[in-house]
Amino acid sequence: MTEARELSLFTAGERLRRGQLTSEALVLSCLERIEVREPEVRAWVALHAEQALQAARGMDQEAARQHWRGPLHGIPLGVKDIFDVKGMETKAGSQAYAGGVADADADSVARLREAGAIFLGKTATTEFAFANPSQARNPWNTAHTPGGSSAGSGAAVADRMCLAALGSQTSGSVLRPAAFNGVVGFKPSYEDISTRGVVPLSWQFDHVGCLTRKVEDAHLLWHLMRHERLLDWQSKRDKLPPSLLPHAPKKIWRVRGSFEGESSPECLVHLERACLLLERNGVKIVEKSLPGSFQSVDEIHQMIMATEAAVYHRDMFATNPQFYSHHLSDLVRTGRSMKATDYIQARRQREIMRKDIAEALADVDAAIMPSAVTTPPELTQNTTGDPRFNRPWSLCGVPSLSLPIGLSSEHLPVGVQLISMEHADEQLLRIGGWCESVFGFNEAPG
Amino acid sequence: MTEARELSLFTAGERLRRGQLTSEALVLSCLERIEVREPEVRAWVALHAEQALQAARGMDQEAARQHWRGPLHGIPLGVKDIFDVKGMETKAGSQAYAGGVADADADSVARLREAGAIFLGKTATTEFAFANPSQARNPWNTAHTPGGSSAGSGAAVADRMCLAALGSQTSGSVLRPAAFNGVVGFKPSYEDISTRGVVPLSWQFDHVGCLTRKVEDAHLLWHLMRHERLLDWQSKRDKLPPSLLPHAPKKIWRVRGSFEGESSPECLVHLERACLLLERNGVKIVEKSLPGSFQSVDEIHQMIMATEAAVYHRDMFATNPQFYSHHLSDLVRTGRSMKATDYIQARRQREIMRKDIAEALADVDAAIMPSAVTTPPELTQNTTGDPRFNRPWSLCGVPSLSLPIGLSSEHLPVGVQLISMEHADEQLLRIGGWCESVFGFNEAPG
Repeated sequence: MTEARELSLFTAGERLRRGQLTSEALVLSCLERIEVREPEVRAWVALHAEQALQAARGMDQEAARQHWRGPLHGIPLGVKDIFDVKGMETKAGSQAYAGGVADADADSVARLREAGAIFLGKTATTEFAFANPSQARNPWNTAHTPGGSSAGSGAAVADRMCLAALGSQTSGSVLRPAAFNGVVGFKPSYEDISTRGVVPLSWQFDHVGCLTRKVEDAHLLWHLMRHERLLDWQSKRDKLPPSLLPHAPKKIWRVRGSFEGESSPECLVHLERACLLLERNGVKIVEKSLPGSFQSVDEIHQMIMATEAAVYHRDMFATNPQFYSHHLSDLVRTGRSMKATDYIQARRQREIMRKDIAEALADVDAAIMPSAVTTPPELTQNTTGDPRFNRPWSLCGVPSLSLPIGLSSEHLPVGVQLISMEHADEQLLRIGGWCESVFGFNEAPG
Repeated sequence: MTEARELSLFTAGERLRRGQLTSEALVLSCLERIEVREPEVRAWVALHAEQALQAARGMDQEAARQHWRGPLHGIPLGVKDIFDVKGMETKAGSQAYAGGVADADADSVARLREAGAIFLGKTATTEFAFANPSQARNPWNTAHTPGGSSAGSGAAVADRMCLAALGSQTSGSVLRPAAFNGVVGFKPSYEDISTRGVVPLSWQFDHVGCLTRKVEDAHLLWHLMRHERLLDWQSKRDKLPPSLLPHAPKKIWRVRGSFEGESSPECLVHLERACLLLERNGVKIVEKSLPGSFQSVDEIHQMIMATEAAVYHRDMFATNPQFYSHHLSDLVRTGRSMKATDYIQARRQREIMRKDIAEALADVDAAIMPSAVTTPPELTQNTTGDPRFNRPWSLCGVPSLSLPIGLSSEHLPVGVQLISMEHADEQLLRIGGWCESVFGFNEAPG
């Protein structure tokens, strides 16, 4: 029998509204899983089990009176610990940070709370959402990393500890943990979702995103974080609105070129398989390399990110350098020494890339490439993995979506990512929903 | 008898349309003045007398057929030599610049050409619109500077060599030469008029502006550079449209504080006089200092300008350092050494100032203060004067307008400037037109 915690957001919502499930039972189902698995997976840095149960009982009482807050009424979520959640401490994976207990929700958290979500607690993040690994482990094999920086969110969603979770991405921090944990990860267009109340890393690239088990769930969360207005119909209807229905793409661009040489053979084989499945289902696959301007994407991204991180961390790093890992210390020092003229040139180069990718994506429905360079590295390597396949899309601000496609020879998840033009988020999610059913991945850890 | 070249743009336009004046006669009147005065004033770096006369004759033929290009049909203007004018060389006051003959008009030039303007030639500018003095002299006393960087435009308009001229401002390069030459200078809101085709100095602060002898002329040029649509009525009617009519302000903010200690006593006396004239005519004068954030305005402006100049001049300065004055060399070197984190902080500080000044200007019709720190310095001082009273308004991007108010004990012009909220340009120009008539300045050099 399917446990309640294994349901998608949509299905759980339906059952709650039909009286086939209570929020309390759903939250308990998650907490049971956490109790069993958390000692191994270590996805959470703070659990608020009692408050969550209390909130669930309150939601059930409201439901009994047919009062529905929204489509997430009574559904337990996880939140990466760089988002402020009212009444919870924000620690940002660092001892240097004195965020304390938040007295207000981050904008994105507030939207989901209005829609009825219950927040179980805060999920593990790398230090300030950068590179220093968190405590979390990969639920498929706890000797491996769940990726980063949204490490705990990826692990918790994959391991059925919550139904979905918020993450954030500056390089590859939503899509990589999604791929490493065998779940869906979505990073919307730049500035599409407010980052207010989220600890910044580099404001040119910081994106709020989400990790879910189904594309339609990512679609729902994205809608809710953008438009409060969706609440009305959603609380009364069980069917997906037409704007959320899966939609078959006509033409997909398979990204060729230098990426392929950098990708592990296993990730490439799964990409090959994904493309064949798409072709067999009537999608035309076209092949081309990235625009030439993308040769400097890693360098440009690094220059801007280091500079902006150095601005944000200036005072904290001066006061408490001992709390900074060598990863982040190096980044801040690099940023501090950056010349203003180079920063300006980097931003101009970025504008060229944005223009070039807009042209390249204009005549396809989406692009496809591996979500990550490798399968999840072992914890002993002290890395959360390489974000370079996600970096171009964080830099350009175009939406990207990671879908699980299969398992590696070591039984670790592999993902492919779809990319579309800026502000074509809805189209990307609808295409993603269709691809998801074509790929048919249906495995779970543990 | 009034010479044709002494007319305002509006009056000249009227006479042309009534057949009381020909464009050829108007252009000849300007050229006669140039022939007599230019050896002393040196306002022009390039004159295109023959082409201008030819164009004038063509305009007169069109006029004979009742074909009117627009409100500037057949009217000769000057253009600062950092604007591209098709078929003319752009030299930007520097030997390092290889602009060559422009094959297209700058956007602002194109708008005026469409309205029928004839370009007599290029007016002298300081080196790359920065601080190194140009060849030009003040027509009121050629032992003094006409200011900078729009030096030749100010001198030529004051000396009746053309009816109006284009200038540009990054610190105080329109308002200071306006004040020094006893003419009207207008710097619109930031990004209100395209800077395409104008050699940049610092793109956060660069503004296209104009120097005229009447506020209504500045208003007309501003309208034409923004809206092509004004042409239609203007070519058929002689009356000002209601949107261009002078308008009495209710409340003017006289800026108090540190500025007063920096201003020469003579400039302050003329400001005092201006305020008394306004009060006598029913305007309420309120007094307050600039917001506290403005204490660092010079430093912030310098940091951003130096950095952006260093980006623009990087290659030219590397190739031809011998062609750079010490003024500009110092600026580029300062910019090259600027830290990216400091540049970002400076831009943030600027945003604070923009917000603060918007609040401070919200409950008055305009602010008033001296246009310049002193009267025009002598040429022997090797300076175009101090832009610090204009810098805050270039930094914040709010519109500012300099009006001549009187003459100093040495018979040199003194100006006062009016400042209003961003995008309140039209209101500022209408108020300026009213103040102009209250001030009643009506002197001319030579």
